[in-house]
Amino acid sequence: MELQDQNKKGDKDLFEELCSAIGREFVFDNIEERERYSFNGVNGESMPDVVITPHSTEQVSKILSIVNRHNIPICTRGAGAILSGGALPIESYIVLDLKNMNRIVELNARDLTVTVEPGVCIKNLQDEVAKSRLFYTSEPGILDSTTIGGIVSKCTGGMTGLKYGVTRDYVLALEIVLPDGSVINAGRKTLKSVAGYDLARFFVGSEETLGVLTKITLKLLPMPEKACTIVTLFKDIDSALKTTDSILVHNHLSLRSLEFADKTCIDAVSDFSEMEIPAEAEALLVIDVDGNEKNVAKDISRIDTLCKENGALKTSIAHTDEDRNILLDIGKLISPSLSKITSMRLNEELSVPRSKVGGVLKNVYELSKAYSLQVAVFGQIGEGHINLNVICKNGETVEVSARNLVSQILKDVVSIGGTAKTVLQPHEVEMMKGLKKMFDPKGIMNPGRLFGNSSAHRKDAKYAKEI
Amino acid sequence: MELQDQNKKGDKDLFEELCSAIGREFVFDNIEERERYSFNGVNGESMPDVVITPHSTEQVSKILSIVNRHNIPICTRGAGAILSGGALPIESYIVLDLKNMNRIVELNARDLTVTVEPGVCIKNLQDEVAKSRLFYTSEPGILDSTTIGGIVSKCTGGMTGLKYGVTRDYVLALEIVLPDGSVINAGRKTLKSVAGYDLARFFVGSEETLGVLTKITLKLLPMPEKACTIVTLFKDIDSALKTTDSILVHNHLSLRSLEFADKTCIDAVSDFSEMEIPAEAEALLVIDVDGNEKNVAKDISRIDTLCKENGALKTSIAHTDEDRNILLDIGKLISPSLSKITSMRLNEELSVPRSKVGGVLKNVYELSKAYSLQVAVFGQIGEGHINLNVICKNGETVEVSARNLVSQILKDVVSIGGTAKTVLQPHEVEMMKGLKKMFDPKGIMNPGRLFGNSSAHRKDAKYAKEI
Repeated sequence: MELQDQNKKGDKDLFEELCSAIGREFVFDNIEERERYSFNGVNGESMPDVVITPHSTEQVSKILSIVNRHNIPICTRGAGAILSGGALPIESYIVLDLKNMNRIVELNARDLTVTVEPGVCIKNLQDEVAKSRLFYTSEPGILDSTTIGGIVSKCTGGMTGLKYGVTRDYVLALEIVLPDGSVINAGRKTLKSVAGYDLARFFVGSEETLGVLTKITLKLLPMPEKACTIVTLFKDIDSALKTTDSILVHNHLSLRSLEFADKTCIDAVSDFSEMEIPAEAEALLVIDVDGNEKNVAKDISRIDTLCKENGALKTSIAHTDEDRNILLDIGKLISPSLSKITSMRLNEELSVPRSKVGGVLKNVYELSKAYSLQVAVFGQIGEGHINLNVICKNGETVEVSARNLVSQILKDVVSIGGTAKTVLQPHEVEMMKGLKKMFDPKGIMNPGRLFGNSSAHRKDAKYAKEI
Repeated sequence: MELQDQNKKGDKDLFEELCSAIGREFVFDNIEERERYSFNGVNGESMPDVVITPHSTEQVSKILSIVNRHNIPICTRGAGAILSGGALPIESYIVLDLKNMNRIVELNARDLTVTVEPGVCIKNLQDEVAKSRLFYTSEPGILDSTTIGGIVSKCTGGMTGLKYGVTRDYVLALEIVLPDGSVINAGRKTLKSVAGYDLARFFVGSEETLGVLTKITLKLLPMPEKACTIVTLFKDIDSALKTTDSILVHNHLSLRSLEFADKTCIDAVSDFSEMEIPAEAEALLVIDVDGNEKNVAKDISRIDTLCKENGALKTSIAHTDEDRNILLDIGKLISPSLSKITSMRLNEELSVPRSKVGGVLKNVYELSKAYSLQVAVFGQIGEGHINLNVICKNGETVEVSARNLVSQILKDVVSIGGTAKTVLQPHEVEMMKGLKKMFDPKGIMNPGRLFGNSSAHRKDAKYAKEI
């Protein structure tokens, strides 16, 4: 009893210290705010002690310096986006919501760079740079509410990676607040940075387990003259994969993205999409092309022919931005639509050599039959990306089978040189933990993300995530 | 005397241990071999105790494990390329020459990847992948003898960065032997790697101060349909910079590279080049374009017009590979030609925001007048890259002025958000030293490169490098 009271007193002290450091209006400990940020996992609900919404690097620095001294873990969060699988339900923690750090600090159209705060939404960034006829490569796969801080810290995003590379390739410099509150600048606002170890790129994808990103400088590209989108449907997965192969391997067409979705995904989105989808469709491709006017016309016509040669049931081509958005929405809607048909699904993002996609999918569907489980697969297969989902509608027994299925696929993926978020070799984990310890000796930054002190918790949280 | 004898005995023991671990035919301690690998710096000559030429990862692993136990520093070297400024003359060290690790391990044309050993020359790599109509983006700026290990460990190379990004963007996976001899694999042979911290990219550019790269997996691209090169000469630098601006900013032309050279560089190469150069030329641009046939034709014609509008003295256009090589050679010949006109030059590679190149150059030439020093400037100015050279023909006094000039330019560069190899902020150095210590606790890997225990030595070595 006494101990509990002492804890309460400690919490109150911390709260007051935070308020006096950065201002009471940015620090919340009322139950309503805390509930909004609480985490639902198999281990029950976990609620933060305090929620903070800083407006500046200086505030973030003060907050980290205080919580580090108090040994209180901190979970970062951007623009109210759903916490990813890694977020850990732990007993005592603080949520740092970066939604108010949403300024576009500097756009330099001549140097093709922009510096933004982490809470800037991708859509706002695109709208702003479009005024200078520039674009950031991560569109169009990203939902409007996704923040640049989110995609840089996870190195996800970018359905245009086929043509333009991944998020990492476009991060030039970062301002970072380290766990002890010190502020560092990593990287440079230049295309060729030549000094020392590449700290900026090291923080990209580190899921804010090493520090909080407070400013991000990105490389921009000139807006392409023209973009065009095709959605095409097939009566079987093989035909879709053959079409993909023809497009990617034999024709070297200049694609921006090539996304695949299977029957379960098609059914899930069909209620929400404006495109009419034939009932017999078992596979779908969303293909995006950009470049100069003539090239795009030539490539689109060639892709249309290849789709027909491979027995496409239906092909829709969109030339205007408005029509393109309708088609591109199909891709964007897959994940939210799957959430509508089931509140529980086991999800794993896989990355495999492009030529191995077909083999992995074959394996997935065979196991799905063997276990009598429904799977939903989509992804940027042009880049070897597979988003595997196993639907777990009916309680615990199904979940055990689902885990077995996923772990067999993971073995398969690793054996062919692929990778998944949950698959790290022991030496990698050891080395990464050493690096983590160097930057964050007390382990206060987003414990449980990537890997962590509590990997058991994390696994459960991941596998049962409520989406 | 006794101590020296003991040292000799220690050396002999180490030599025998290395011989019995990897085979006598790969380990050399004769004076001829050691002299071939000795280092010439202002502090005099420094000769390695032993030279080793391993053929396999296993051998490298055994070597590192032995020298680590003996606390003997090791200097890595690829294909006999000149040691870069960082190589340190230290009393006792071993040279590890990776020239024999020159196999192309696996080319996967369907996945657009290739795995090579570090000693593979860029030219051999390009010839091999060209058979599958693929290319690695680092051509054409690289001399034939440059190895892939060299450019990955320095993250240099790639004169095509304007279009294709930098070396880092094309490294997918690495096999690395750590200083203790353990072998790790970092990264994956997939386009989207999603697991943990980005160790592979962290080792790119680390100049082998953290471990030895023994296998490198690269991303390849489909060979462009057509490439075309323009060399154009101007009577002043301003006209060349205005042309660059027109090409880069106002026209968004799809360039592969855009290199600049000033009068001193032009004069240095003119004796070696097959192109006739007007005597009044003060600035030169080498412009390379690739893509599909029609686009290249359109872009080349537009660039030609822009050059003329800005008062070009002469413009040569090459459409065939043979003719292109003659023009591209001009860029490749600059650095070796400068070495011919002076045995001593102070060299600094700068990276600045593209829009700031003109301002930096203006500053360089003003200071060159003020100090009565001859400078030679070239570089991929399309990417904000400036290779600054101050000619030091006449002894010590000139060298002091030259250092003053360079340090003033470095201040200027840092103030505008640029970077140079010798300019790291104190917090960056501290953090990088922490990382270095984690990977290489005894500091045996290439001491003096990047930064290190003996930065004073290094500075001298760098500034006085014999080229």
